[in-house]
Amino acid sequence: MTTDPPKTLRDTDDEARHLVRQLLTTARIAALAVTDPEHGGPYVSRIAFSVSPDGEFLTLISDLSYHARALKADPRAALLIGEPGAKGDPLTHPRLSLRATTHVVPMGEEHARRREGWLQLHPKAKLYVDFPDFRYLIFEIHGGHLNAGFGKAYALAKNDLTVW
Amino acid sequence: MTTDPPKTLRDTDDEARHLVRQLLTTARIAALAVTDPEHGGPYVSRIAFSVSPDGEFLTLISDLSYHARALKADPRAALLIGEPGAKGDPLTHPRLSLRATTHVVPMGEEHARRREGWLQLHPKAKLYVDFPDFRYLIFEIHGGHLNAGFGKAYALAKNDLTVW
Repeated sequence: MTTDPPKTLRDTDDEARHLVRQLLTTARIAALAVTDPEHGGPYVSRIAFSVSPDGEFLTLISDLSYHARALKADPRAALLIGEPGAKGDPLTHPRLSLRATTHVVPMGEEHARRREGWLQLHPKAKLYVDFPDFRYLIFEIHGGHLNAGFGKAYALAKNDLTVW
Repeated sequence: MTTDPPKTLRDTDDEARHLVRQLLTTARIAALAVTDPEHGGPYVSRIAFSVSPDGEFLTLISDLSYHARALKADPRAALLIGEPGAKGDPLTHPRLSLRATTHVVPMGEEHARRREGWLQLHPKAKLYVDFPDFRYLIFEIHGGHLNAGFGKAYALAKNDLTVW
């Protein structure tokens, strides 16, 4: 088995970094992949997601959810960011595939001080933001790929994703 | 660590099965989660996806892609199916999280006889359907969840997903 990157990967340039920044600043949802503690294989679900003004990659999820319990057993995660619109070929719409480790924000002051920023980007979360089982999770990003359309893939290092 | 399902899971009823069928018949893309062979954690990307008229859960991907190479090392996969539209809260839009094992369709007759059906559902694939590195993958589905909106989650057995 080879782990060399495929030959189709392009060098990350300013155009790619601009697209990355655009995808990150506009994202409000993501697909979250985790390792399923029951089977050891992957599991993927949809989550609320955004990057805070100070650059934190963040979600707010119920502690009782399947993915939250999976992340307690193994904090490694992956994110797919960049939702295709109603028009055009969804496979040409740019998206990010990122590798991350998750960290749970402790309840108390740390939890409370993220509330206002989260509600500004996710106003409908006011329905459940104060439920006692909801926790903020921070994604510590290790790297990944930008797929900017057919045959336009870029490898991203951690530095390509710290755009704030 | 407990692996009990969360208490919020509902019994799968006809309404849920109807929604499952609707999501499966209209799906043209999915998020595919695999185990990253470099790191052992999850990896997630966007793929073309559809269920064929005879009930095959299918994608067409390049053999050179990161996810194809990951599946060679570990054929376990997960799918997120059900794309939110431009309107409404994307987190209330129903979606499926499915566990699967992937099987590569061998080149030759098996590959060729899926071509027409695939192009009917994915007309833009005519640009690359005949590239020599493209392979059909069949997802053998083991089960999963339907999330039909906030607090409306259902556990799905294999039989709930064989709707053809």
